[in-house]
Amino acid sequence: MTTDSLPVLAILGGTGDLGTGLARRWAQAGYQVIIGSRTQEKADAAVTDLKEVMAERGVAEISVSAEENLAAAEAADIVAITVPFSHQASTLELVKPALQGKILIDVTVPLVPPKVARVQLPEGGSAGQIAQDLLGEEVMVVSAFQNVAAAHLQEGSNLDCDVLVCGNKKAAREQVITLVEAAGMRGFHAGMINNAAAAEALTSVLIVINKQYSCHAGIRITGLGDD
Amino acid sequence: MTTDSLPVLAILGGTGDLGTGLARRWAQAGYQVIIGSRTQEKADAAVTDLKEVMAERGVAEISVSAEENLAAAEAADIVAITVPFSHQASTLELVKPALQGKILIDVTVPLVPPKVARVQLPEGGSAGQIAQDLLGEEVMVVSAFQNVAAAHLQEGSNLDCDVLVCGNKKAAREQVITLVEAAGMRGFHAGMINNAAAAEALTSVLIVINKQYSCHAGIRITGLGDD
Repeated sequence: MTTDSLPVLAILGGTGDLGTGLARRWAQAGYQVIIGSRTQEKADAAVTDLKEVMAERGVAEISVSAEENLAAAEAADIVAITVPFSHQASTLELVKPALQGKILIDVTVPLVPPKVARVQLPEGGSAGQIAQDLLGEEVMVVSAFQNVAAAHLQEGSNLDCDVLVCGNKKAAREQVITLVEAAGMRGFHAGMINNAAAAEALTSVLIVINKQYSCHAGIRITGLGDD
Repeated sequence: MTTDSLPVLAILGGTGDLGTGLARRWAQAGYQVIIGSRTQEKADAAVTDLKEVMAERGVAEISVSAEENLAAAEAADIVAITVPFSHQASTLELVKPALQGKILIDVTVPLVPPKVARVQLPEGGSAGQIAQDLLGEEVMVVSAFQNVAAAHLQEGSNLDCDVLVCGNKKAAREQVITLVEAAGMRGFHAGMINNAAAAEALTSVLIVINKQYSCHAGIRITGLGDD
């Protein structure tokens, strides 16, 4: 597969911990990645950092650029959003015109600070469902990556963590599962977009476990093919 | 530890798939188990079956008996409820007087047939929270076992599946984790009772995965002690 055949990816909120981790993984896998941020300066700084980390890892050639969020969404084939829940709706409103006909990967977890270890799902049921409702059916919202520790994503090492992939369109889920695999993990079809509630709620449980074990926990699906 | 020091366990709805699986595991581990059902006849039949299965496995001596649900709850130290969601509230109303000061292990998953592969959490947030609200603070509700396949529980083999344990009292969660371990699995403190929403929602995701892989999937917590 040549780089030419790969979709161009934008990561809105790409300067945060999760966005940084995904950018590193996808850039290293050969994807063209556009880091989106609210300001050009922050996006530029993230790209500079990304290039330095790739150079340290001996990754010779990567294709990365920096844009404000709307321009990033316009230039990409597939758009991921990794902003805090409190900024999800405003960011999506901003980029909505640029998302028509595209896949939006929603990585939002509806944590309610300061009690982030407590499951407090939003009235819409899940952040994924909120995104789908806000964007309309012409945007294929796919929820993923809620249960992956950003610290592990940022490292270059193997990830002992599976990803639940929810969305109303199977073909869109398939494309996101390909991106999950490019980032070094297994992705699972986990049902329609409202099933994002499961992965989003699980994040608070993993925060509880992280506190107990001083770790960055994840999940693996077990029992496959045992029937 | 002698059998005398172990708590007496009742399983309400103990004739169903999950209840049968838990009864086999706990009886084999040496616990005194009371199978509860809506009718004495069904409870008696479950006990006959349980004794046969234990005899087949060469387990010489088990301590099991059959009662209607209320009598089972009265006679036990710790009570598990494994009835369908549609019977959860009515069963708990019936046995509420017998639960005061005790631990109730809520195994209820709020599936909404026929769309059991779709996360549809109840208005109260979770079945676990509903149980706690219905029973009041004198009953220690602990949610557990939502993500374990009944088929695997019923077998005598090793279980490659972890259990998320939610409840408002840590000491009560500890006792349930001991019972999880007696049943052959690892149990994790997963937060307060409202975090039961995570495990309950995850069951629908596992149903999606079961359909794809023709399997009985579960989860494992990964990344422990890696920090």
